Amino acid sequence: MGISGMAAAAEPVDLDMVNRIRQEAFHRSQVMETFSQLTETIGPRLTNSPQMARANAWTRGKFTEWGLANVHDEAFDDFGRGWEFSNASVEMLSPRALPLHALPKAWTPGTPGPVEGEAMRVTIKAIGDLDQYKGKLAGKILLLDEAREYKRGSEPDSERHDDTGLAELQTFAVPKDQTKDRAKRIKEFGERRALAKATNAFFAAEGALAALSISGWDNGIIRVGGGGSRKAGEPIGVPELAMAAEHYNPLVRAVERKQPVRLRVDVQARFTDEADQPGYNTLAEIPGHGAKAGEIVMLGAHMDSWHAGTGAADNAAGVAVMMEAMRILKAVGARPHRTIRVALWSGEEQGLIGSQAYVARHFAAYPEPTDPAQKALPASLRESTGALQKTRDYDRFSAYFNMDNGSGRFRGIHAQENLAAMPIFEAWLAPFHDVGATTVASRNTGSTDHVSFDRVGLPGFQFIQDRLDYFSNVHHSNLDTWDHIEPEDLKQAAAIVASFAYHAAMRDERLPRKPLLEN
Amino acid sequence: MGISGMAAAAEPVDLDMVNRIRQEAFHRSQVMETFSQLTETIGPRLTNSPQMARANAWTRGKFTEWGLANVHDEAFDDFGRGWEFSNASVEMLSPRALPLHALPKAWTPGTPGPVEGEAMRVTIKAIGDLDQYKGKLAGKILLLDEAREYKRGSEPDSERHDDTGLAELQTFAVPKDQTKDRAKRIKEFGERRALAKATNAFFAAEGALAALSISGWDNGIIRVGGGGSRKAGEPIGVPELAMAAEHYNPLVRAVERKQPVRLRVDVQARFTDEADQPGYNTLAEIPGHGAKAGEIVMLGAHMDSWHAGTGAADNAAGVAVMMEAMRILKAVGARPHRTIRVALWSGEEQGLIGSQAYVARHFAAYPEPTDPAQKALPASLRESTGALQKTRDYDRFSAYFNMDNGSGRFRGIHAQENLAAMPIFEAWLAPFHDVGATTVASRNTGSTDHVSFDRVGLPGFQFIQDRLDYFSNVHHSNLDTWDHIEPEDLKQAAAIVASFAYHAAMRDERLPRKPLLEN
Repeated sequence: MGISGMAAAAEPVDLDMVNRIRQEAFHRSQVMETFSQLTETIGPRLTNSPQMARANAWTRGKFTEWGLANVHDEAFDDFGRGWEFSNASVEMLSPRALPLHALPKAWTPGTPGPVEGEAMRVTIKAIGDLDQYKGKLAGKILLLDEAREYKRGSEPDSERHDDTGLAELQTFAVPKDQTKDRAKRIKEFGERRALAKATNAFFAAEGALAALSISGWDNGIIRVGGGGSRKAGEPIGVPELAMAAEHYNPLVRAVERKQPVRLRVDVQARFTDEADQPGYNTLAEIPGHGAKAGEIVMLGAHMDSWHAGTGAADNAAGVAVMMEAMRILKAVGARPHRTIRVALWSGEEQGLIGSQAYVARHFAAYPEPTDPAQKALPASLRESTGALQKTRDYDRFSAYFNMDNGSGRFRGIHAQENLAAMPIFEAWLAPFHDVGATTVASRNTGSTDHVSFDRVGLPGFQFIQDRLDYFSNVHHSNLDTWDHIEPEDLKQAAAIVASFAYHAAMRDERLPRKPLLEN
Repeated sequence: MGISGMAAAAEPVDLDMVNRIRQEAFHRSQVMETFSQLTETIGPRLTNSPQMARANAWTRGKFTEWGLANVHDEAFDDFGRGWEFSNASVEMLSPRALPLHALPKAWTPGTPGPVEGEAMRVTIKAIGDLDQYKGKLAGKILLLDEAREYKRGSEPDSERHDDTGLAELQTFAVPKDQTKDRAKRIKEFGERRALAKATNAFFAAEGALAALSISGWDNGIIRVGGGGSRKAGEPIGVPELAMAAEHYNPLVRAVERKQPVRLRVDVQARFTDEADQPGYNTLAEIPGHGAKAGEIVMLGAHMDSWHAGTGAADNAAGVAVMMEAMRILKAVGARPHRTIRVALWSGEEQGLIGSQAYVARHFAAYPEPTDPAQKALPASLRESTGALQKTRDYDRFSAYFNMDNGSGRFRGIHAQENLAAMPIFEAWLAPFHDVGATTVASRNTGSTDHVSFDRVGLPGFQFIQDRLDYFSNVHHSNLDTWDHIEPEDLKQAAAIVASFAYHAAMRDERLPRKPLLEN
């Protein structure tokens, strides 16, 4: 018998409470009502947009209605300006009339009504590439990318883990040395930022009407993030859109065979603030009882989204599941020893900004760099600025559980190299083997808000989920909508989160930690 | 050894000519120039649209440039009116602002500029369902379909035949008796037509602003055909569009939860004729030489298309391949015994209309019914009207080869139950085994223009092709565009068609026929 098996036998599981949680989660679920409200009534929730503010307000209202405590928004500084769009259209006027499918990049300006101009291909890979276009861009609609060959599908576009896939997840790849990469990544980060700024300023100064880039995916899917700049005072460039590959490629081919292409672009988009604004996370609690009431278990998911779809799998699904877990715990009358706190993050899509600010304020942070060059880097690229500075709550913190790998069913959890946590998770998962959640993997996973905890040595975890069509159809695309999720998967996830939160809150000890490797 | 193997040994193949054809097809191909002109410069080619007329003219020009003879358009009567659209947009105005992706159905009217109204769900399955909506539709935008659950992909969206698939194609399913089905199909056809007419008239009379239906496929793909009516004097209804499922479903869900949804619809579409017009097939020949010059081998593909994409796989691919086969034969200096004639059909998408009219005029037809009820039926549903009436050329006809199963590589040919043709095809295919075309299947295949020949007992054939993403992404959809085809597949197909045409034209005998089962 392995160590995890041995230890799991010793970890207590309250099966009566699991029973109650499962009944509430499976038979009196409200997760789809929550999910529908977020996606179809509120819609996408770009950080600092009016829709994100509506989501903050609506979720606060729901938490209050459910009887949670300390319901509030917590600001994080200096995110930038809000932005929203209400409509966008691109038409080909010649050589033939045709509506083209495109959506605007966030934080780029709208057009002053419809504008018309000739399509022009530009190739800009470095600041030095701009000069050749001086005096040539006025009145033009720029094609930023080359045509891209269609990538034919070789796998089904939706997928659930099978036994082989789950077994594979239980292997751990000993990491390569990454020090050499770091200098390169810092250099590239700086170059990218400088190029974007210079290009935005140049396009606007030269009087280009708009700019088009190719969607990252084929099959008419529009995958789009941000452009311009969210920071007040920085150049925002010209109206910029991502276009379906099947519509973009023909424009490039026509221009390359010297066939004039005339386009009309109409983007109704606006910045909703003149000055930079803080972003807002929404928080709420079920207070603990007794001696451990000052200790904390956290659940969370980012509520902000990109704007092309409705932010459904990314990440209304996670928000609805975390909210539902809190509702279930209230509904079953849970009286946890530790406080269970839920956080609905903002600014995740721009670099885990909301969760990182929250962790820095409440638990631990490295000193802010004084060197402006270091200050300009994202936290993951900065050099050491000294020892980690911890708050009182650092040692009172037990664990953070996150959901942000699409909407697919939970199949287990990534232990994030915390081997001491594995037998505990195995015990907690046992009552959910029958609904497909079986696997505790030692692997790290990244790119979402548990990293903000993990980075400062706090136990932060992300569940293993079925992929479904997250990385083929919906991630950051116009297809990230209600119809691509599975209600049963959200119910299952909510039950597991509620049970994990409850057991973490009731356990004798806080969750064990892995050694912190300081920056 | 099987019979096909025995006979194949006896069928002569001119490998010197095959060499010349392959060199021209593979190394001096013009198939992509032709294909690009049809799809990207001309665009989609709805039957009787101005773009179809441009395609007729351009292909005539090309045939003339290549030195073909008897280049001309041939009219077929009474198709209906032309129609085209230049732009279409649907916006949600409330509960939130959002551009929705939709394209108009052919032969439905445009809007008189943008129109705004409330979305309303209607359920119309029979004429009796209309009454309940009397006086209630004015100013409304109608949702014709219920919401549809997302269908998750379980297979790759693109596929080529493997050995198992090709072997499976060589089995033949002995057909079930279809007489009973026929009466049912006639009844349903009549009911569908009557319902469409009544509904179109009712919506217009009631003052509905527009009507929306759900696209037949998910993942944002818009699959759309015709609505309204192409026939002058028939009710054309109101502006009608097919909408991406991910945008349509939320409208229905909102209406069902009593949330008012306000939409703006703007469709720039028009009928290009007041009265019904004939359609036009384009024809051209390489005249035969000697005693068999009066005998005929035909190649063909339909040039008309639906309008959502650019009619690329359906069927600029087939047209480009058939044109390229003719060009190759001229380029290699072929002097065929029989005349090789190419036909670029129109009206295929509305029921093989162009090819059927052509076959009736030039080769054979059943007498036109006098009963108006029978007259109203498509030919495939009519009762017997007497013996087949044949022209002089009926017996001079050898074979017709068609391409219309998308753009995928040729893997062989359907022998359409003509067992005597199979060993001949096996011999002709042998020099193309190395490029993947190996399989002669006894199976019938339908739904395209070779059926117009087959129905009157003339040998008409359709090649076996790799499916690629024809039935997952492109068929009749906005993704039926340049990027979804493979240039190498078109080159391969053109070589095979040129060689088949040449060998059919040079063979001692015309192609054997299977017995004609008269209606």
